[in-house]
Amino acid sequence: MKNEKYTLGLDFGTLSVRCVIADASGRDVGEGAFDYPHGVMDTALPSGVKLPPRFALQYPEDYIISAKAAIKEALDVSGISKSDIVGMCIDFTTCTLLAVDEELTPLCHTEKFRDEPHAYCKLWKHYGATEEAAIISKLAKDRGESWLKTYGGYVSPEWMLPKIYETLRSAPEVYDATYRFVEAGDWLTWLITENESHGVAFAGFKSLWNEETGYPSDDFMTAISPKLSGIVSTKISEKIINTAECAGYLTKRGADLLGLAEGTAVASAFIDAHAALPAVGLSDEGELMMIVGTSGIQLINTPEKKGFEGCLGCVKNAYLPDMYTYEMGQAAVGDIFAWFVKNCVPSSYEREAEELGISIHKLLRERAKALEVGESGLLALDWHNGNRSPLADPKLSSMMLGMHLGTRPEEMYRAWLEASAYGTRSIIENLEKNGIPVRRIIASGGIALKDELFMQILADVFGKAVEVSSSTQAAAHGSAALAAVAAGIYPDIKSAAKAFAVPIHKTYEPIPKNHEKYTKLYNEYVILQNYFAKGGNDVMKRLMKK
Amino acid sequence: MKNEKYTLGLDFGTLSVRCVIADASGRDVGEGAFDYPHGVMDTALPSGVKLPPRFALQYPEDYIISAKAAIKEALDVSGISKSDIVGMCIDFTTCTLLAVDEELTPLCHTEKFRDEPHAYCKLWKHYGATEEAAIISKLAKDRGESWLKTYGGYVSPEWMLPKIYETLRSAPEVYDATYRFVEAGDWLTWLITENESHGVAFAGFKSLWNEETGYPSDDFMTAISPKLSGIVSTKISEKIINTAECAGYLTKRGADLLGLAEGTAVASAFIDAHAALPAVGLSDEGELMMIVGTSGIQLINTPEKKGFEGCLGCVKNAYLPDMYTYEMGQAAVGDIFAWFVKNCVPSSYEREAEELGISIHKLLRERAKALEVGESGLLALDWHNGNRSPLADPKLSSMMLGMHLGTRPEEMYRAWLEASAYGTRSIIENLEKNGIPVRRIIASGGIALKDELFMQILADVFGKAVEVSSSTQAAAHGSAALAAVAAGIYPDIKSAAKAFAVPIHKTYEPIPKNHEKYTKLYNEYVILQNYFAKGGNDVMKRLMKK
Repeated sequence: MKNEKYTLGLDFGTLSVRCVIADASGRDVGEGAFDYPHGVMDTALPSGVKLPPRFALQYPEDYIISAKAAIKEALDVSGISKSDIVGMCIDFTTCTLLAVDEELTPLCHTEKFRDEPHAYCKLWKHYGATEEAAIISKLAKDRGESWLKTYGGYVSPEWMLPKIYETLRSAPEVYDATYRFVEAGDWLTWLITENESHGVAFAGFKSLWNEETGYPSDDFMTAISPKLSGIVSTKISEKIINTAECAGYLTKRGADLLGLAEGTAVASAFIDAHAALPAVGLSDEGELMMIVGTSGIQLINTPEKKGFEGCLGCVKNAYLPDMYTYEMGQAAVGDIFAWFVKNCVPSSYEREAEELGISIHKLLRERAKALEVGESGLLALDWHNGNRSPLADPKLSSMMLGMHLGTRPEEMYRAWLEASAYGTRSIIENLEKNGIPVRRIIASGGIALKDELFMQILADVFGKAVEVSSSTQAAAHGSAALAAVAAGIYPDIKSAAKAFAVPIHKTYEPIPKNHEKYTKLYNEYVILQNYFAKGGNDVMKRLMKK
Repeated sequence: MKNEKYTLGLDFGTLSVRCVIADASGRDVGEGAFDYPHGVMDTALPSGVKLPPRFALQYPEDYIISAKAAIKEALDVSGISKSDIVGMCIDFTTCTLLAVDEELTPLCHTEKFRDEPHAYCKLWKHYGATEEAAIISKLAKDRGESWLKTYGGYVSPEWMLPKIYETLRSAPEVYDATYRFVEAGDWLTWLITENESHGVAFAGFKSLWNEETGYPSDDFMTAISPKLSGIVSTKISEKIINTAECAGYLTKRGADLLGLAEGTAVASAFIDAHAALPAVGLSDEGELMMIVGTSGIQLINTPEKKGFEGCLGCVKNAYLPDMYTYEMGQAAVGDIFAWFVKNCVPSSYEREAEELGISIHKLLRERAKALEVGESGLLALDWHNGNRSPLADPKLSSMMLGMHLGTRPEEMYRAWLEASAYGTRSIIENLEKNGIPVRRIIASGGIALKDELFMQILADVFGKAVEVSSSTQAAAHGSAALAAVAAGIYPDIKSAAKAFAVPIHKTYEPIPKNHEKYTKLYNEYVILQNYFAKGGNDVMKRLMKK
């Protein structure tokens, strides 16, 4: 294998794009990054038009400008020529949805719709379609739609169909003018290759598509609204290709847009979080990758198709060939710890952290580390943003009990870490209960590398070793691996993943004594989970309504 | 009625004594105060002897030194002569227990026992007798002792018998050397009058005595320990007199000790919290006084004797003649708010409070006031120090639910205020369920005067008006009223209370819309109360053990 061939991964996140260039052996040779000039628009459009609450829009041109800048930086750092790049792959947040015309121009960039919020790119965390998601979920349930169970029985407002339906209801003229509703990652891939294709992971996880029955039936679409009738063959597309397949080659125009060479192979666009899979070296069934960030994601591959509550999607060929990738999630992980530090830590702690020259998180971790398992008498439910898996219920909220007059901040901080670990354990147990054994756990993400206490708690709560990947650019690096498959350097994802796997930074082994204590506490967590989430007492839902 | 007659109230608190001199019309003419030189000894004796955890001892000589100083200050301020003082009354924390010899000398002040912790005065909040209280409670329950139900089915470690039994077990030589175990208030009254008497409120509320059967039987005492056999006729006394009865007159020695005139009438010693009753003007059955301090106390009078769970005692003639005074309590009220401010409020709030020149409590109250009832979606259980009434369970802990990523400190602060109000409402409902209607509510204490938001929340949660007494020295002023009865200025407590009642500072009327919303939230509180405290899920107890 010659090393003069290079591939490029482009990882489009919420606020910026990161670029990694790797050689054929999987070694990174250059990195770049660039912030989107307009960031996330959640209060107003650039023209000053005010946005409703919970909107989160983006400015599509930002993606191209930022990608070109990040690629230039990565090329400059690496010192290689753009003509040495033989393949590239885009990974993107999802469902981040564009409405484009026949020229692939986003409608927001046309004169007519520049002041129309619904013509802008709806970011994954745009929650304007909450009502539409509820309508679609209820309808699917009432009609007994067979696909619903593979999504945990519930359609998220983050997904494509609620976002389209929102546009239809709120801005019908945008709906009418739309040639294609398209994931931003697919749109960019299409634009630079001039060949339409849609990544199977986007379609399978976010657009209710599956390899057996395709999108929901036209009958279902029509039942939502007669105006949605025929949408699958008109405004969305069935040109779906598997992960790491070649979506086409950079055209002259595409090459100019990005500052790369014409003819470069472009892999099918992929989900950003999933793109970390080859980077952490996940290459077999039963291996679970958990991304520990502001929220949490768990991905695992298995040859069988199953649908169960709390599974956010199960998609064939989304990663390993002929296997199903299952996605589960925790709606808030680091977000809870950050909420605590922002809202619940007294100034005496802040002063001490400052004097010691460490972060408040670090001070709390150091103090929390000195506590015995169960010492504080606290127990919490980690539902600050509802529960995605295994409960699939956004209308849950958090709980903590056991506070007394001597309860200190580090005890509560640790209780939130533990609650999050119990939440992950309940996801793992749900998998195993449904016949998907978890043989290996690899953690990735900033918190995984940084928070040793939390990682040890995870291992102790699970009673399983937790390996932490050393990758800091897992998604972009993983995309470069997929690009190497699309460019023909590797015959399949498995072999590319083996070459591109970054070393394990550290393995956390469970401490048996702690695991035993945590199992008792976890059993308490499960009792409370059942009580508050499974009909014992719906107080959390009633309080949300008041 | 001539105004040249004056009476004096001496209110012995946890850290200091306050003195009030009032004229016969109930108007205060002088005040004084003095801190106990040794304060609360909770880590070591003055000689350096280390104390076990949860000990809280006092130095009996402090009471005399401090009282003399406070009286002198009050006399100086008032400009009247000590010979114009015709009556006095001592109110005291309870059960604050002394072991004295035949000379009434506290054993800690004898050469032999000066290094012995159990020879010192055990303050009400001395918790060294927790194990003994559990033994006594269990034994009483197992034997079906009839008196147990009037104490809510549980003997507190704060009370006399556990404290005596602790001394017997831990320092038998102190037990043997003790001539009398006596409440500090009774001891001081005895010392200055040279006439033994024991206040009925101390005996009834803290020493398991009642007017029908007296102290627990000798059979019961012997069952605790053969060494306790015969204790009622030896080391404790049945010379019990009603509240506001004359206990005797200052002897030459007593007058010298306090700096008052020989022959001054001295009323029966009384419980400090109860001494506020005449000051707030409570003079009829069905009127509830609630003291809102670090913890909470509720007192109400009714002609019938009933025992029910969550009643901490029910004692005849403890206040109004031929009526039973019922005491209920909340183990932590202001203590929870203070815990929150110390442990859970971020520096950004502290900085803002500092810039505005207000306290953090005030800043939080102002922000919390702007919230609608139920807006935060939070609900809490106010059990930071267990639950005294109506659950009589010290092994409960607090709980909060409804937190999400947008939850702010002022929302949590308000949720703790509301939880405390729900706790009081459940006490009121428990009274009414047991046939004791609450016709009027008068609040007293620092928080009642200071925290308008909390008072309005109380009224809204109760759906009843809450009157706040303007008294800032309620106990000392109330003691002066009782002294006026003992000195013959008034024929009975009712008439003295009418004269001595300080004006109502402000009456908080319930806002019907808020009451309706709070009733829904209170119903949720009750469901959770039953779940966590009545066998639905004993998780709080299991977590305490771990």
